[in-house]
Amino acid sequence: MASQAVTPQGVDFSKWYNEIVYKADLAAHSPVRGSIIIKPYGYEIWDGIKNALDKRFKATGHQNAYFPLFIPESYLRREAEHVEGFSPELAVVTHAGGKQLEEPLVVRPTSETIIGEAFSEWIQSYRDLPLLINQWANVVRWELRTRPFLRTSEFLWQEGHTAHVDEADAERETLQMLDIYADVAINEAAIPVIKGRKSNIERFAGALRTYTIEAMMRDKRALQSGTSHNLGQNFAKAFNIQYLDESNEQKFCWTTSWGLSTRMVGAVVMTHGDDTGLRLPPRLAPIQVVIVPIYRTDDERGPVLEAANNLKSSLIDAGVRVQLDDRDGIRPGFKFNDWEMRGVPVRVEIGPKDVENSVAVVARRDVPGRDGKQSVGQDNITAFICQLLTDVQASMLQQATDFRDANIHDVASYDELKQVVEAGGWARTWWAGSDDDERRVKDETGATIRCFPFDQPDGAGRCWMTGQTAEEVALFARAY
Amino acid sequence: MASQAVTPQGVDFSKWYNEIVYKADLAAHSPVRGSIIIKPYGYEIWDGIKNALDKRFKATGHQNAYFPLFIPESYLRREAEHVEGFSPELAVVTHAGGKQLEEPLVVRPTSETIIGEAFSEWIQSYRDLPLLINQWANVVRWELRTRPFLRTSEFLWQEGHTAHVDEADAERETLQMLDIYADVAINEAAIPVIKGRKSNIERFAGALRTYTIEAMMRDKRALQSGTSHNLGQNFAKAFNIQYLDESNEQKFCWTTSWGLSTRMVGAVVMTHGDDTGLRLPPRLAPIQVVIVPIYRTDDERGPVLEAANNLKSSLIDAGVRVQLDDRDGIRPGFKFNDWEMRGVPVRVEIGPKDVENSVAVVARRDVPGRDGKQSVGQDNITAFICQLLTDVQASMLQQATDFRDANIHDVASYDELKQVVEAGGWARTWWAGSDDDERRVKDETGATIRCFPFDQPDGAGRCWMTGQTAEEVALFARAY
Repeated sequence: MASQAVTPQGVDFSKWYNEIVYKADLAAHSPVRGSIIIKPYGYEIWDGIKNALDKRFKATGHQNAYFPLFIPESYLRREAEHVEGFSPELAVVTHAGGKQLEEPLVVRPTSETIIGEAFSEWIQSYRDLPLLINQWANVVRWELRTRPFLRTSEFLWQEGHTAHVDEADAERETLQMLDIYADVAINEAAIPVIKGRKSNIERFAGALRTYTIEAMMRDKRALQSGTSHNLGQNFAKAFNIQYLDESNEQKFCWTTSWGLSTRMVGAVVMTHGDDTGLRLPPRLAPIQVVIVPIYRTDDERGPVLEAANNLKSSLIDAGVRVQLDDRDGIRPGFKFNDWEMRGVPVRVEIGPKDVENSVAVVARRDVPGRDGKQSVGQDNITAFICQLLTDVQASMLQQATDFRDANIHDVASYDELKQVVEAGGWARTWWAGSDDDERRVKDETGATIRCFPFDQPDGAGRCWMTGQTAEEVALFARAY
Repeated sequence: MASQAVTPQGVDFSKWYNEIVYKADLAAHSPVRGSIIIKPYGYEIWDGIKNALDKRFKATGHQNAYFPLFIPESYLRREAEHVEGFSPELAVVTHAGGKQLEEPLVVRPTSETIIGEAFSEWIQSYRDLPLLINQWANVVRWELRTRPFLRTSEFLWQEGHTAHVDEADAERETLQMLDIYADVAINEAAIPVIKGRKSNIERFAGALRTYTIEAMMRDKRALQSGTSHNLGQNFAKAFNIQYLDESNEQKFCWTTSWGLSTRMVGAVVMTHGDDTGLRLPPRLAPIQVVIVPIYRTDDERGPVLEAANNLKSSLIDAGVRVQLDDRDGIRPGFKFNDWEMRGVPVRVEIGPKDVENSVAVVARRDVPGRDGKQSVGQDNITAFICQLLTDVQASMLQQATDFRDANIHDVASYDELKQVVEAGGWARTWWAGSDDDERRVKDETGATIRCFPFDQPDGAGRCWMTGQTAEEVALFARAY
């Protein structure tokens, strides 16, 4: 049960987040440094995201496979940027079966290398391409500072790995998978992510180009929520992934990789949550509707529970994920708080008077207080609730979109950028700066280029950093 | 493509198995000792098993969660038998993030210890019980001799972990989960497993009682295919899992655990496969029906492919997993071999004459040659195929059951047992022997007690080993 008071977002967002994660029963502390236990309620949200992605991966011709957890240390060294990027975060198995290993095994931080090695054996000819593989797996990155779901030493994710005949097909795939991530984020998680290209210094270690979906949290920080990489021929050359083309010539493949993780659960919490707890978009909510029966006497109890059970059955038949909270000895007000903390999108209250009048009170989580409550006749209440779930989903996306748009500001000077970033917003600005220019902004303001958004203004503008003409605007923000 | 000849089962079963696994594209070799890459075709079979189990777990009130991959080494030592059982097989992380760890972390071989620790925090009162948790995860056991799917240093599985108020409820759960395993094995995988209790020396390290489902492979060896353990209060005491009962007394819980792994994919191969390849039960087959169009000229090609595509659409609408093999430049005979190797339960051939006569030839994989083929009118072919898939599923279970029953023999002396075991069969016999008696049989014959089957004859009999009256029969067999 989770009815204690929460630190308000405005007081300490970070504390608010940690409290919600544990009080809403999404996760539990674990004895292993930097890792969490994902509890059933949190796991079901992840499962919803997973199913939504998996369906789309399969519809676009991808197949699931499973590759080893352990990677020979020497594999990582074959791609120079890659090993440099991941070395500081590796967990290493040095002993197994009671003996010291001849070559240490790295616990996968990502699987480009071992999958690259496999692809080099599986791919012979252009007929084998494109090769479209996805893996659902756990990965380990020994991070210094960890936060539940956002950054943990072990996390769950999917990693797609594909090989193609040429750059155009690899690029098409990279962008297609980014579109799928955005589709799931926007239409399932109600998170209005912005699609864009990463800057050089934020690129994946070993990639040609990295694309990202960036989300704005309630504290206006950015959260990178999924990335898709065009790896060019870097890994193909490092792992000798070659094919015979139609004119019998040996060529290197172009490969891609793309990943989305349990971090997305954290994104849901920080995009939608408020000071009374979690708010879950109906499409991902493990429980979409909770029914709270209200009675004082045993005489009232029977008819109220009967009406509640009838509604429950009717909602189950309509495909709604519903729970009847018939716990005895717990006050309705306490139950309300409990389910608000857990972010259930719709609550139905049924009391003796409601039974008499053949109505029930329906309350939506996304509209607080009286405004979100109404009495609905029991005749058409199931249809009403189904429609309401669609409305709540849309309303949550709209609220998050409005919040995002209100907090992105166009800036035309360094001073303006600093002001916006200091106030927590995102700064959109023409940019032609170098990697060093970007690092300078980061050092001085804490903001990084989240992406060059795909949605660009027409024409060109002046970059205040270099004084040159810039072809693109970039989004600067502080990020998780 | 997979049309090379296979070593016959009768010549070298072990070689046959390895060839099928790789030629049917279930798995690929991996560069990491003792581990495999599960390829899409093999992964989809596992996914079918997984979904069948998960549905049943949820229907019986279990919830999925996820616990850390790494377990502090000290945790394993808390339950004496448990650490003794698993120590020789552990993989150990000694370095992470560029530093030596203060306490080495063990890569989970199973999760009783870390989940036990969590349960001790989560459980306060009898109201929290039963606690019914399942985890889908990878585990690592550094085995000396490995075989694809059957015994690999890393494998995928589910592990259920539950806590209960008393022994009766824990026992009920343990047996319920064994029933679910048997249900999935028999009704999804068409493997007629035998349910029973493990002997003392085959018990899980730390359990009070271990129950098992045992399957007979085509070489008549036994394969333990899933186990369910009543852990008594051993882990509850080691990890201090206590609850306040209704009269406010502090008590130790009773816990259970149960697991089924990707080994089941190996069981499917070795229960059903034959000398032309894999045979998959329709309910688990990634492709249930393959359509092979047959034509010589371009004139024939159009109408044949049209009929094939129409049938494909109709089968998809009926919920059948179907593939149209329209690869050009590959002879039909080659395609037949290819799909037989991959074990597709039903093949449909459509040629120009079939189109003219509005028929198609339907061939079932479980009945070889002419007997399994018939011409079916295109009007009702979809309904015919749906029924046929049900029939093939039932027929495969019946074939496997007949094979199993023909190879279990009642024996009443050590000589008879040796004869049966030497011939590869299973020996059923009254048994009242000690652990040492059982070890002697193992040393001398290679056979172990697979289980004391739940299905027991009436009364009691004489144990030839001890000369005493035995209350139970045991099944002895050589096993994987």
